[in-house]
Amino acid sequence: MTEADVQAVDTANRAYYEAVERGAFEELTTLWLAPEDAEYAEDADPDEAEDTSVSCVHPGWPVLTGRGEVLRSYALIMANTEYIQFFLTDVHISVVADTALVTCTENILSGGPAPKEGDELGPLVGQRVVATNVFRRTRDGWKIWSHHASPVLAESDDESDEMGNGDEDGSPA
Amino acid sequence: MTEADVQAVDTANRAYYEAVERGAFEELTTLWLAPEDAEYAEDADPDEAEDTSVSCVHPGWPVLTGRGEVLRSYALIMANTEYIQFFLTDVHISVVADTALVTCTENILSGGPAPKEGDELGPLVGQRVVATNVFRRTRDGWKIWSHHASPVLAESDDESDEMGNGDEDGSPA
Repeated sequence: MTEADVQAVDTANRAYYEAVERGAFEELTTLWLAPEDAEYAEDADPDEAEDTSVSCVHPGWPVLTGRGEVLRSYALIMANTEYIQFFLTDVHISVVADTALVTCTENILSGGPAPKEGDELGPLVGQRVVATNVFRRTRDGWKIWSHHASPVLAESDDESDEMGNGDEDGSPA
Repeated sequence: MTEADVQAVDTANRAYYEAVERGAFEELTTLWLAPEDAEYAEDADPDEAEDTSVSCVHPGWPVLTGRGEVLRSYALIMANTEYIQFFLTDVHISVVADTALVTCTENILSGGPAPKEGDELGPLVGQRVVATNVFRRTRDGWKIWSHHASPVLAESDDESDEMGNGDEDGSPA
């Protein structure tokens, strides 16, 4: 991968979070891979147009598949979120050919609508979420193929502790 | 993508879960992408060898990056898991060129070591986890590039309900 690739993927990744922060639904729809992007990928052929179905997992949610289901979820999230900000850390980008794999920690500060009239905002909640985002290179830039975000349930920041106590059944601490 | 591609990816995906079920650590190490696999990818060149770093998120865990950290986590999980079985449902496979994206629900039944001598097994725990697994095509078959698994925290099986109640901050129900 080139430095330019990594920069471009980093920009695409940040554009995704900024669109969610601003509640920019229309913009978000352009960031996700669409069937018409398939033919523009350098190594794709028209037969592969059907293979670009996107998937998305919000923290604690089941898998959503396809643009319709995925984009509808963002409309609902935006309707129920008055304020959300992502502070990204531990961003790691790996690019192989026309696919990019991004992992990052989403340090989230969010608040819902005010519970009663007159209040400006619901209570702010801080959360540590980790994400794996997969991007595909298209003629129109890097597009999101998959987003999987999940809550970090460990109580300790000491990774070696977490690993010692963790197990596959989801009880890390 | 061809039907053969989908079949091969499905086989690679199941081989991963079966290796974890059997506690087959050595086999597991061969299923994850390694630096030497990079040059065998059809569309890769030697400069990309450094880009194949794998990543892994176990349910509730932070991101683990690189073969060393990832494989060590499985050794620890296997040491702390007496019994684990995955019943995969909702398997969805999307293949574009040399990358495959798999999403599935891991219906897990697991048990730890017996709490006291004489018991055969710790209590069995059932769990619903969703996973996004990314595979790369290599000369030696499809290898795991990324595994991200997370607990489904929603109480309802009705997806439309979950979506109505869910929000990005991880409180779906």
